[in-house]
Amino acid sequence: MDKIDQAKELKVEGLQSLIAKRWSPRTFSDKDVEPEKVKLLFEAARWAPSCYNEQPWTYILGSKKTCPETYDKVLSTLVEFNQGWAKSAPLLILAVAHLKFSKNQNENLWGKYDLGQASAQLAIQATHMGLHVHQMGGYDGEKARTTFNIPSDFVVCAAMAVGYLGPLEQLPEQMQKLESGPRERKGLSDMVVSTWGTPSKL
Amino acid sequence: MDKIDQAKELKVEGLQSLIAKRWSPRTFSDKDVEPEKVKLLFEAARWAPSCYNEQPWTYILGSKKTCPETYDKVLSTLVEFNQGWAKSAPLLILAVAHLKFSKNQNENLWGKYDLGQASAQLAIQATHMGLHVHQMGGYDGEKARTTFNIPSDFVVCAAMAVGYLGPLEQLPEQMQKLESGPRERKGLSDMVVSTWGTPSKL
Repeated sequence: MDKIDQAKELKVEGLQSLIAKRWSPRTFSDKDVEPEKVKLLFEAARWAPSCYNEQPWTYILGSKKTCPETYDKVLSTLVEFNQGWAKSAPLLILAVAHLKFSKNQNENLWGKYDLGQASAQLAIQATHMGLHVHQMGGYDGEKARTTFNIPSDFVVCAAMAVGYLGPLEQLPEQMQKLESGPRERKGLSDMVVSTWGTPSKL
Repeated sequence: MDKIDQAKELKVEGLQSLIAKRWSPRTFSDKDVEPEKVKLLFEAARWAPSCYNEQPWTYILGSKKTCPETYDKVLSTLVEFNQGWAKSAPLLILAVAHLKFSKNQNENLWGKYDLGQASAQLAIQATHMGLHVHQMGGYDGEKARTTFNIPSDFVVCAAMAVGYLGPLEQLPEQMQKLESGPRERKGLSDMVVSTWGTPSKL
């Protein structure tokens, strides 16, 4: 295992190992992702749960090797900073949520939430296959809408770079520092409550 | 492994086993969830990725045994049909998204999406520990807001029943049928595209 992967892995007893191993790098190897692995990424997303089994998820898949036109278009929707590092990834993906129910066109309040679940399963599957995923909020959603003809009841919720981990030296010095920093989160008492403002006794 | 668990497990070569095993039952055993496992559910959610590492997730945790007041309140926010079966679960949880960024109160467009990711990690961790999770859209969000004093820039996105799988016979006959039916999803060509309406070559 890569040294940086080892350093990033959480040491929490009992935590499922893929959850402990998942992190979001900014450097990818030029090694392609095998076609069967690409398919399995989306199989994993496909089997996520969703409200009324609506499956409000669409993924726009750009592949440097097999679908370079889409790849270039997805890349062009990213903000400049993200373009800088994300272009090392062999796959660039946009995750799109449907905000209406297909059967009756009523508002689907769970569209984004359920898309998030599908993407999390994609990331777990990626980790399982030795890949890394870096999700981004830094993209131009309206440019993506025009570029890919995304209808108004759908919305882009994330861009993703996917591939094998690349060398740290590929990054500018300042970003190398950012890359190898510790993973940080709020404590459990800030996120699990028995009523608003009152932490649960865990 | 339970017979129904075996029947529900997806047979997709290469699919990570916890993703293949996860499904949403409507019958739970009266066996309690061990305190260390309860904690690990939220550890798994805690380490999900989020936009600007905002971590826009709060979970309201009701436990039949250790926090029965919250449990009864969460139960009372569910629609009647869900109350009927969900009350067999030892844990009832509400998942709440923050729709503004903490640092500047700007709108967080990724609040629901990132909460969905955290909940998906919770469900994977649950499956890893032999538990089951059933998420629901059938709850009264405004009743939950009043009951738990949830501020206006937060929104309930899911209710969850968590516990060990219970006997099928615990359910009314009609629901037993529903429970043991096959798992169904759209095909990959309906969810992975190279531009809108054009399936990717996978």
